Amino acid sequence: MTNMLYCFGESGNAYKAALALELASVPWAARFVDFFNGEARSLAFRAINRMGEVPVLDAHGTILTQSGVIQDWVMDETGKLCGDGSKATRREILRWTIFDNQKVSGQAGPLRFLMNFLPEDKRPQEVVAFMAGRLKAALLVLEAELATRDWLVGDSLTCADLSCCGYLYYDEPFTFDRAAYPAISAWLDRIAATPGWKHPYDLMQRAYPPA
Amino acid sequence: MTNMLYCFGESGNAYKAALALELASVPWAARFVDFFNGEARSLAFRAINRMGEVPVLDAHGTILTQSGVIQDWVMDETGKLCGDGSKATRREILRWTIFDNQKVSGQAGPLRFLMNFLPEDKRPQEVVAFMAGRLKAALLVLEAELATRDWLVGDSLTCADLSCCGYLYYDEPFTFDRAAYPAISAWLDRIAATPGWKHPYDLMQRAYPPA
Repeated sequence: MTNMLYCFGESGNAYKAALALELASVPWAARFVDFFNGEARSLAFRAINRMGEVPVLDAHGTILTQSGVIQDWVMDETGKLCGDGSKATRREILRWTIFDNQKVSGQAGPLRFLMNFLPEDKRPQEVVAFMAGRLKAALLVLEAELATRDWLVGDSLTCADLSCCGYLYYDEPFTFDRAAYPAISAWLDRIAATPGWKHPYDLMQRAYPPA
Repeated sequence: MTNMLYCFGESGNAYKAALALELASVPWAARFVDFFNGEARSLAFRAINRMGEVPVLDAHGTILTQSGVIQDWVMDETGKLCGDGSKATRREILRWTIFDNQKVSGQAGPLRFLMNFLPEDKRPQEVVAFMAGRLKAALLVLEAELATRDWLVGDSLTCADLSCCGYLYYDEPFTFDRAAYPAISAWLDRIAATPGWKHPYDLMQRAYPPA
């Protein structure tokens, strides 16, 4: 029995977990969640994760949910993707992970959903504009940080980078234009140049359009 | 020199840090941030925290930002508010902390801001309705969990509770009605009955209305 990751391709949150597992060389298999047919909200899935969300990692029977928790497990299990592994470094990684969950992925995920996976006549334009503004503010924080350094924490790729980049490789429009963020764009290229890196759609099965 | 927490009363994120410090009996002093006059976005403040946010803890020269990171530090320093302190328990606390930052506080904070701290004619009603729906979905997850247990993790108050309750004691309307969430309401009463508990406005100076 290997580590089983409940996921689907459109989820940048699942991608954060899948990419960490992949780059840390942890054996894992994808268990597809049919999100657009409501599987993540089903009673059966909520019995696994009451939060009704992917990713969920079944690590030989230990159930871990929230991408940041799965990344924490990967860092502990492998000693990889956590720089020098010191408590101070781990806290700095956690700092960016929480910032990402609230301000970067936390805006980009729903915004991309509204702009791409809802029928046009159902898209709340005022909400799209509001979330785009919040995402821009967060991206400007990332841009300022990455203008001064190659990686968010220390001098190597860590889970801080793998959290903040979670939604930024997707081609579907969500108001993120790489040309407007040169430091972020160069950083995304650095991450993508890491041996073993894969695009989310090459790591996980797509759930859209629903069957 | 004591531990200095950059904060203001209306910030539930600052409250999560202040309440953890207070209940773990860590000596601390508040350093008021004049949020509504823009101090958190000032160059001087961004030199302390590029994210331009409170809370920031200056722990004898070590700068910690993001409430979840400050809570992580409090648990490590004191061994309190983390149940049995096992890695599994700490991960479960982190799970709820990240869920809170993205789904509970991450919605309640901006929603409460829009509904109370913006002029009426500037409130984007479609955004308010959208965020209220997202907050309700997160509160229903909390309600379901708390219907089965007294505390979110283990059998005692932990930082998981102190994160998820961060915005829920405020009286300003943000579409949260305790009567609609009996398990959450009873849990908030349990937290408030903890010796040393204080309301955010009794722990931190209010910044609204701006001078």
